[in-house]
Amino acid sequence: MSDDLVDRLRLLRTAGIGPVTYRQLIARFGTAAAALDAVPDLARRGGGKSPALHSRADAEREITRVEKLGGKYLMLGQGLYPRLLAELEDAPPLLIAKGKLSLLDQPAVAMVGARNASAAACRFARGLAHDLGRQGLVVVSGLARGIDSAAHDGALESGTIGVIAGGIDIFYPPENEARQTALFERGLVLAEMPPGTEPRARHFPYRNRIIAGLATGTIVVEAAPRSGSLITARLAAEAGREVMAVPGSPLDPRAQGCNQLIRDGATLIQDADDVLESVAPAQPRFASPVDRYEAAGPTDCEDAVGIVEELLGPSPAPVDEIIRLSGAPPGAVQMALLELDLAGRLDRHAGGKVSLRPA
Amino acid sequence: MSDDLVDRLRLLRTAGIGPVTYRQLIARFGTAAAALDAVPDLARRGGGKSPALHSRADAEREITRVEKLGGKYLMLGQGLYPRLLAELEDAPPLLIAKGKLSLLDQPAVAMVGARNASAAACRFARGLAHDLGRQGLVVVSGLARGIDSAAHDGALESGTIGVIAGGIDIFYPPENEARQTALFERGLVLAEMPPGTEPRARHFPYRNRIIAGLATGTIVVEAAPRSGSLITARLAAEAGREVMAVPGSPLDPRAQGCNQLIRDGATLIQDADDVLESVAPAQPRFASPVDRYEAAGPTDCEDAVGIVEELLGPSPAPVDEIIRLSGAPPGAVQMALLELDLAGRLDRHAGGKVSLRPA
Repeated sequence: MSDDLVDRLRLLRTAGIGPVTYRQLIARFGTAAAALDAVPDLARRGGGKSPALHSRADAEREITRVEKLGGKYLMLGQGLYPRLLAELEDAPPLLIAKGKLSLLDQPAVAMVGARNASAAACRFARGLAHDLGRQGLVVVSGLARGIDSAAHDGALESGTIGVIAGGIDIFYPPENEARQTALFERGLVLAEMPPGTEPRARHFPYRNRIIAGLATGTIVVEAAPRSGSLITARLAAEAGREVMAVPGSPLDPRAQGCNQLIRDGATLIQDADDVLESVAPAQPRFASPVDRYEAAGPTDCEDAVGIVEELLGPSPAPVDEIIRLSGAPPGAVQMALLELDLAGRLDRHAGGKVSLRPA
Repeated sequence: MSDDLVDRLRLLRTAGIGPVTYRQLIARFGTAAAALDAVPDLARRGGGKSPALHSRADAEREITRVEKLGGKYLMLGQGLYPRLLAELEDAPPLLIAKGKLSLLDQPAVAMVGARNASAAACRFARGLAHDLGRQGLVVVSGLARGIDSAAHDGALESGTIGVIAGGIDIFYPPENEARQTALFERGLVLAEMPPGTEPRARHFPYRNRIIAGLATGTIVVEAAPRSGSLITARLAAEAGREVMAVPGSPLDPRAQGCNQLIRDGATLIQDADDVLESVAPAQPRFASPVDRYEAAGPTDCEDAVGIVEELLGPSPAPVDEIIRLSGAPPGAVQMALLELDLAGRLDRHAGGKVSLRPA
């Protein structure tokens, strides 16, 4: 058992340390061990008390359990971790993977949609996944009912990745146990949560960012307005990935979400050729947030916490704007945000925005 | 019977004088009478012989017949002629109208689609036309079977214009006689061709440009790839108007044309609100070609025909480019093109391009 993995798990499983904070701590202090040492002092400088660190014993227990389940940890910034996923600002620092890890090296598209999709849409999704697989694309989905299941089934021969909201050993929905087991053996299953975690509503958006983040583009097949599939599409767009949607008749209420996505700029998809045309030229367009952060320059600025605190309010503001208004070196502002965060005084929002948490 | 109308009809019905040439002749010589006088000489200067002018007696016979049929002539550049239609470079110089001319003053959208459309699509088109009518939009279509008929029916109460490919007294398809008669009484029917003209295949694209030209935007409902409806959509786009399409499932072959249009940039339409959002801000964006032509400046250039002839080849070239390369005043180049045209030595193409006709 690697000491570094234990330290990373302790840091990550500490309440109040999310993926963005974790990533910045590692970027700042180099190792999880050094970050763990620094957390109490940072939190004090941010004006709070130190969070209770996750215990070494609990971390070791989790690692043993994952090994016993046949799972592997993938660590952000290290070998097997998927390159595209690493580009997300809130990329999961650790993933638990079970299955064919080689699928992580291939270009992937995500396919998501309604759990209660029509039989025709499920058939379409299965056929599309099959065709995309024949073109060398791995199909990523969420192992849910409906479109997700059809997408996995269609791409089972060629390669498919299921990202689940709960622990790697939890089958949800229960009737998908056989499908998830098939993916353990012939595909790949990824989980961000520790083993034993039952999926809850709040877990699904986090799961969805992983689906979108793994793929060069996300295809939505039959989705209701305000559904989880549309959240995945939004996350894909925010990450600079292609958003694609399969249209339907305005007379079909199940087509409303996709039609609206297309109105909002998603690419209309009729078949695998349309998908290939959209995702083929996709290349990473941005330096990873870690790179951007590490390139941020000097951090010498005595009273950065005070300056940043004054600039922050209860409404989310872009970090870039805080840096510009502060007049302080970007590195110093990031450090101050990290300190406020660890002190439990900062909220992080989508799109890299931050706000001061109401007292 | 107005002498000017007789002269205009003689000029327009002369073989070899199309809408663009007609428009430039009127712009150049002020009246149809002066243009008629000038044609023989112009053709000679262009290196050909004069076209046989349409006879005064034939023109007078047509006018009498239109009056007897209850029709009215609308002349480009004069009072009742629809403003948006006048913006087309190849706007019809004369239209024969029968019905409520006041409909020409209202904002209009065009709705076109498959003659063999599904019952569901026809019902959708009728409902959409009805809703658009309630929002104060006149619905323009082509009095064909299928979507066209449904569009007229839905907007019959509120206001609808049917543009036909044949003469005003011809019912095509024959089963639409009652519908066309209803439009004579409660809507408006427009025809570019003289009375008695049976519509032929080549007339339909000309008819389609009028449909697209009358409207701020064109909605396509269920259209096969490479169908006439897609030609209307292309003409609308070329005229700088909105192109809108109603999507359908990729499993429905009748949705292919519309889905492709949306992939190519047409706005996806689900209901009347979507249409209003698209067409509301539409304003004429260009000066009319007549204005542009009349502003083209001096025409003094002795050997413009020779210069222009050398610059022209069998491949269509933009007039702007010919003007730039010639070094001659724009007016002189336009005049030379007119002369070559009347001499039967010029072909005019879409997008204002011209080429020398192969000998």
